[in-house]
Amino acid sequence: MKNFIFHNPTKIIFGKNEISNIGNEIAKNDIKKVLLVSGSGSIKKNGVYQQTVNSLRESGIEWAEFWGVTPNPVLSHAREGCESAKKEGVEAILAVGGGSVIDECKAIAAGYYLDDVWSAYDKSAKVEKSLPIFTVLTLSATGSEMNAFSVLTNAEEKKKWAMGGKSLYPVCSIIDPEVQSSLPWRQTANGAVDTLSHIMEVYFNGGDSEVTLAIDESMMRTVISSISRLQKDEKDYDARANLAWTATMALNGISGLGLGGGEWAVHRIEHGLSAVFPHVAHAEGLAVLFPAWIKYVSEVNPEHFTRWAKNVWNADSIIEGVNKMKLNFHNWKAPVTLGELDIPESRIEEIADNTMLLGEFGSMKILQRQDVINILKLAV
Amino acid sequence: MKNFIFHNPTKIIFGKNEISNIGNEIAKNDIKKVLLVSGSGSIKKNGVYQQTVNSLRESGIEWAEFWGVTPNPVLSHAREGCESAKKEGVEAILAVGGGSVIDECKAIAAGYYLDDVWSAYDKSAKVEKSLPIFTVLTLSATGSEMNAFSVLTNAEEKKKWAMGGKSLYPVCSIIDPEVQSSLPWRQTANGAVDTLSHIMEVYFNGGDSEVTLAIDESMMRTVISSISRLQKDEKDYDARANLAWTATMALNGISGLGLGGGEWAVHRIEHGLSAVFPHVAHAEGLAVLFPAWIKYVSEVNPEHFTRWAKNVWNADSIIEGVNKMKLNFHNWKAPVTLGELDIPESRIEEIADNTMLLGEFGSMKILQRQDVINILKLAV
Repeated sequence: MKNFIFHNPTKIIFGKNEISNIGNEIAKNDIKKVLLVSGSGSIKKNGVYQQTVNSLRESGIEWAEFWGVTPNPVLSHAREGCESAKKEGVEAILAVGGGSVIDECKAIAAGYYLDDVWSAYDKSAKVEKSLPIFTVLTLSATGSEMNAFSVLTNAEEKKKWAMGGKSLYPVCSIIDPEVQSSLPWRQTANGAVDTLSHIMEVYFNGGDSEVTLAIDESMMRTVISSISRLQKDEKDYDARANLAWTATMALNGISGLGLGGGEWAVHRIEHGLSAVFPHVAHAEGLAVLFPAWIKYVSEVNPEHFTRWAKNVWNADSIIEGVNKMKLNFHNWKAPVTLGELDIPESRIEEIADNTMLLGEFGSMKILQRQDVINILKLAV
Repeated sequence: MKNFIFHNPTKIIFGKNEISNIGNEIAKNDIKKVLLVSGSGSIKKNGVYQQTVNSLRESGIEWAEFWGVTPNPVLSHAREGCESAKKEGVEAILAVGGGSVIDECKAIAAGYYLDDVWSAYDKSAKVEKSLPIFTVLTLSATGSEMNAFSVLTNAEEKKKWAMGGKSLYPVCSIIDPEVQSSLPWRQTANGAVDTLSHIMEVYFNGGDSEVTLAIDESMMRTVISSISRLQKDEKDYDARANLAWTATMALNGISGLGLGGGEWAVHRIEHGLSAVFPHVAHAEGLAVLFPAWIKYVSEVNPEHFTRWAKNVWNADSIIEGVNKMKLNFHNWKAPVTLGELDIPESRIEEIADNTMLLGEFGSMKILQRQDVINILKLAV
């Protein structure tokens, strides 16, 4: 078991009809005005916007609104958000949406104190402070509601990079799984794949932290059983709630304790892929790449991958585990080949080049350009 | 899955050779002087005292010392601690020891601001604020290093009662499992029983929080496998580390999320028992009482107890699960009958009376005086 530090100060309020607490939580922190940030407007259809602003009003919190965050949020829009936060004189950022909205809010919160927000992502500046962040989550997937990371795409330079900093833990996040029952199936399935991928990225780092490995396996099995229940009944609250809480736990730090920093190789390749092909949803890229990566690297530590196959998929071999995972993804209507993402084999080198922009990577196995090409070919 | 709030702000630094960070963590919080609180002096034998004061000295932290915390810490000593904290003008409390030391430190930290510290335990006062608490843990068992609870015994009135409050989460706790390798076996085994009991108290509350139940089962299995490894080799670092981290996770809030507040009936009876018989170590009381409680109440929810028997003990029935648990406790050299605790059957009514001081209790099944007597009789 490796040494670790765990310190996650985010307050979580979880369950039905809890969104009405957001105003009070903000007021408790002596904040008078927030920038309410969201996407294309779906929160006006599912009632979340109304619940949120009613709560702000009741607690005497003023707000300005900043709309238009996209899936795979982009730098140009985050820069506008920073300007808006300054112009409006807000004291905190309130994300109302899914992981993309929260990630862009972290960019705005940090960018508020930087000359240019991209400097946090290209590591030319360190995030020392940021505006306080509050979130009302509408799509469980990325875990961003309870961690200090953010991923942003610089579309001009085709760079999809990550950053983090202690000040970026949300002060308080509200998760009402019930508002997710009206999500399109594709988003629910993508959330499940994303969650499973986050757990696998830390789990496959290996190590002797038996309790963490066993907890991770429990969480992976919960994802699989919950999404199966939701396929039968999308209104099944308990399945929705279990999936939601597992998504948060997958990336709040707990899932990796004692295992080291995590593997994150598949995320690196996916960021390269969706930087070149921005139409690809993050989770769909992961669904295509993870089986290929496991096939490619599992020979490095067959014991660990065999354990995963057995304890998560009830499979007798690594290849049977991978096949069961692909079959499940397919049943959830997630893609499992590059072809299903409309990516021709001829563009593989371009993805590999983008992936290598930050140099070699990987923990279970160090990956170079040719390894990335080989993995992508296994995903054709 | 029930609604919940989770907010645990304690920073954990876990692993080998980490005690040297304590001074720096205290200094970061702008604290100049602490009250170092400990037990009978074992930390001077295992090197923990020296590591701690060296670190304080290096970070320029002054300290006063307050010794003599006992297992089942008592009110009279905690009152002296409050006086000492005031007289010495400290700004924080530093617990160096196990759960008893930390629990008494919470009493001192809260009592510093109260007319009398017992008012927090008899609920005549609310804990609104307390001195900041830091801990260097030397015995993993109670989870007190990462929660906001404290149990104290009023020996004169034979009352062993609990209290809690948000301000009582330690600011930072350092857990170096290696310093526990020199513990007497009895304390290691008691820590394992205590940990298992904490998980069972929340697990047996039942509910639909599948991810939490599965995580709890993973943690219970880890306790069992780790203590078995330690029986073969007390210096097995990974087993010691897994046991230590599971003990913290068992009662930091995670193990009960979505399940409601927990059952805690066995703890109530144990507090009644060790209030009357202060020679009984908390965990040894639990080891005797838990099998009896399960036998007595499992008919209320046989499905849930059958799941526990199967997933934790690989047993085909509840009674087989209970028997396996007792056999394991016995192998770990923990007691499984009242007789082994030197408690004669004739004193059962006295224990029941003490247990009932705070009224009826229990979640899985509401327990009255006669139920407590019946459970105690099953433990003869």
